[in-house]
Amino acid sequence: MGKVYLMGAGPGAEDLLTLRAARLLAEADIVFYDALANPDILALAARAQRVDVGKRCAQHSARQGEINQWLIDAARTHACVVRLKGGDPMMFGRAQEEIDALVGAGIEVEVVPGVTSALAAAAELGISLTCRGVARSVAFVTPRVGEEEDPSEWLQAVLGADTAVIYMALAKAADIVRELSARGYPTDMPLALVESASLPQRRILFGRLDALTQLAARTGPGPVIVVMGRILEARLPA
Amino acid sequence: MGKVYLMGAGPGAEDLLTLRAARLLAEADIVFYDALANPDILALAARAQRVDVGKRCAQHSARQGEINQWLIDAARTHACVVRLKGGDPMMFGRAQEEIDALVGAGIEVEVVPGVTSALAAAAELGISLTCRGVARSVAFVTPRVGEEEDPSEWLQAVLGADTAVIYMALAKAADIVRELSARGYPTDMPLALVESASLPQRRILFGRLDALTQLAARTGPGPVIVVMGRILEARLPA
Repeated sequence: MGKVYLMGAGPGAEDLLTLRAARLLAEADIVFYDALANPDILALAARAQRVDVGKRCAQHSARQGEINQWLIDAARTHACVVRLKGGDPMMFGRAQEEIDALVGAGIEVEVVPGVTSALAAAAELGISLTCRGVARSVAFVTPRVGEEEDPSEWLQAVLGADTAVIYMALAKAADIVRELSARGYPTDMPLALVESASLPQRRILFGRLDALTQLAARTGPGPVIVVMGRILEARLPA
Repeated sequence: MGKVYLMGAGPGAEDLLTLRAARLLAEADIVFYDALANPDILALAARAQRVDVGKRCAQHSARQGEINQWLIDAARTHACVVRLKGGDPMMFGRAQEEIDALVGAGIEVEVVPGVTSALAAAAELGISLTCRGVARSVAFVTPRVGEEEDPSEWLQAVLGADTAVIYMALAKAADIVRELSARGYPTDMPLALVESASLPQRRILFGRLDALTQLAARTGPGPVIVVMGRILEARLPA
């Protein structure tokens, strides 16, 4: 029986991979990766069979059961199996479903943490997500993890935190503005959209909550992180 | 004029450093590090002068102004200056004060993101901080960033999020239990204390919120991350 490494690939740049991840990729017999994986990172898995499982974002769930089964099957025939995920596997990565399936099948799993995209976005912005006197809490949320849940529940975390980081926000931009406004969240709250953080094509757009929908329309095809809070005030025109 | 790299060292393990951080440490002329830095990581800065700035945690602020000045002075006499911080620099790392001081002095700053300790803790636990149907938001908070702030403000983030990660919680354990209970947060909420995540001496204690003070008393000298939320329910006796 092999071992499965549930591995964070980091935000995108090849050299924001951890040393441990790079070493394990070089040892891997088979690597399962998502659609956004950086080809330069995959190339480190020089001797591995590489399997594109095709997921564009964490919310595409159709094939999750199928992916779980592929991982189980792979661990039965390979010593070193890598499941590569964007950012960190334990943040919006559907890791628990894969861990539970593997452990349930008696397969050893090790999680290799990675640099989550929000922190690469903060690095690009040059803005600390926490800041003495301004922000002592940060909420990481996504407005769409599963449709079976209370669709407003994630809003409480944004309302309660000084800084909010919203993953996979764009498709719900209009909903985000409407729902937060309806709950009294300031519509002039500064925000930044960071697209393709850490990659050469990265783009940053600044604005305020009431302009989120328009800003979202100006982004390209890369993954976007929305950072929102008073920490960004100094970056915007008054 | 040199350049200052504000760099995340990751949670502790040498090989959870990023490839970029390892390369820049090898190029560094001078490295400023905190008390908890791993000697194996510092050793990568083979040709650098190494300066211990002595901070044990982000909340020790007495010398922040002095550290800012040291960084400015170093950038005036060295090409490659590294300011090494535990975890990621943009989470509870007092980065903004250093960035503002450097930029104000006309010095170029680049932030190198790292694996934040909470994600190493989640990896140790084998528990995803988000989980479809259970947790679609995570709050990262600290109960003591600066005494000038409203001492209860950080609580709102915990109350609003499905999962809470509390940095630098131990000295305030009794306050955390009392303040959360007073606001109706469930005192039976499962939690885990992860000490020295990613290091050989790492320890994990499980319990519920009402036992936080007793659990805190059983931890050792390493840094502790508290992870709290229903995601941990399966790990505890009913």
